Amino acid sequence: MRKIGALVFPGFEVLDLFGPIEMFGMLPEQFDIQIVAESGASVASTQGPAALVDNKFNDAQDYDLLLVPGGSGTRAAVDNQPLLDWIRRSSEAAEIVMSVCTGSALLAKAGVLDGKRATSNKMAFDWVCSQSSDVEWVAQARWVEDKNVFTSSGVSAGMDMSLAVISRLCGVDAAKQAAVGAEYEWHDNPDWDPFAESHGLV
Amino acid sequence: MRKIGALVFPGFEVLDLFGPIEMFGMLPEQFDIQIVAESGASVASTQGPAALVDNKFNDAQDYDLLLVPGGSGTRAAVDNQPLLDWIRRSSEAAEIVMSVCTGSALLAKAGVLDGKRATSNKMAFDWVCSQSSDVEWVAQARWVEDKNVFTSSGVSAGMDMSLAVISRLCGVDAAKQAAVGAEYEWHDNPDWDPFAESHGLV
Repeated sequence: MRKIGALVFPGFEVLDLFGPIEMFGMLPEQFDIQIVAESGASVASTQGPAALVDNKFNDAQDYDLLLVPGGSGTRAAVDNQPLLDWIRRSSEAAEIVMSVCTGSALLAKAGVLDGKRATSNKMAFDWVCSQSSDVEWVAQARWVEDKNVFTSSGVSAGMDMSLAVISRLCGVDAAKQAAVGAEYEWHDNPDWDPFAESHGLV
Repeated sequence: MRKIGALVFPGFEVLDLFGPIEMFGMLPEQFDIQIVAESGASVASTQGPAALVDNKFNDAQDYDLLLVPGGSGTRAAVDNQPLLDWIRRSSEAAEIVMSVCTGSALLAKAGVLDGKRATSNKMAFDWVCSQSSDVEWVAQARWVEDKNVFTSSGVSAGMDMSLAVISRLCGVDAAKQAAVGAEYEWHDNPDWDPFAESHGLV
């Protein structure tokens, strides 16, 4: 049983968080999902609805997998030092680190992506890249894997990336079964990315 | 501005709820999303994480759009008379009624689908159909529209259905823009449903 620490901050994007949680949740005997925040009993998303917080930064827990969503709240979160410190510390302890959408701006700012290849949301790509020049930013990718760090493209791409992580940890059949359980058509090719083109990035 | 009442009950499926919320949330000036439950400050999903509750049944509010998710909790919810009463009353007041996955079992049990065509999750299709013989159940469909009632297939199909609702209310360009904003490949053909085949329903 692996423990997933899923970060939330004010203005996180709901599907960045709950798309991956749906996929990992298809294997309840393999993954235990905990919502983690700096403070507060609950944290509101960009879309309005709020997630209940299970753990706080100062619980000093380690997680096997780390999930960092994006959303409009990343614009403030890149300047939140306690949050960046928690990401850096938790990433060092984790077997797998994941970000969805502009969540990679937070990983980059925390130094987790130094010397690594990574991607992000295509609409906010320039802003994300501006968070660190020590990252090899990849414009066209559904997701990018570099050793134990997985970064995905925008919002719904987090589901495809999560299935790739499940495939690595539990085998490709488990990933395919999770996708079928969610009646989801898995884009299993990490190079599939029509949105990089439609946003003029390639 | 239309108000969306998004129902939660113990054991709701996270993506059934938050996939549609992501899509409607792309148009924040058009839709205001409220999480509604029978009781409690928060309600836990099948996957573990919990949603904060904004409104209760006894607030006696009306909603322009009703969203009913599925999940393992529907097995208990089909016998929850206050919940069925709320669904029936809210459906009568709503401009559009939507269900995702086994959420259509709840609409069926509440009588909302009487004389209507509807679909549901393919893995639990027989159980859902057993909830009412007054419904024309459609096995192969990503989603089904019958007048003002939209029912979708399993889990991720809720996003495709939501985009169809956005298309009806705000125009197809708004729906396409919402999909691009989520970097989501919209399955915009309601007849696309490979999962009906893989589950031997057609």
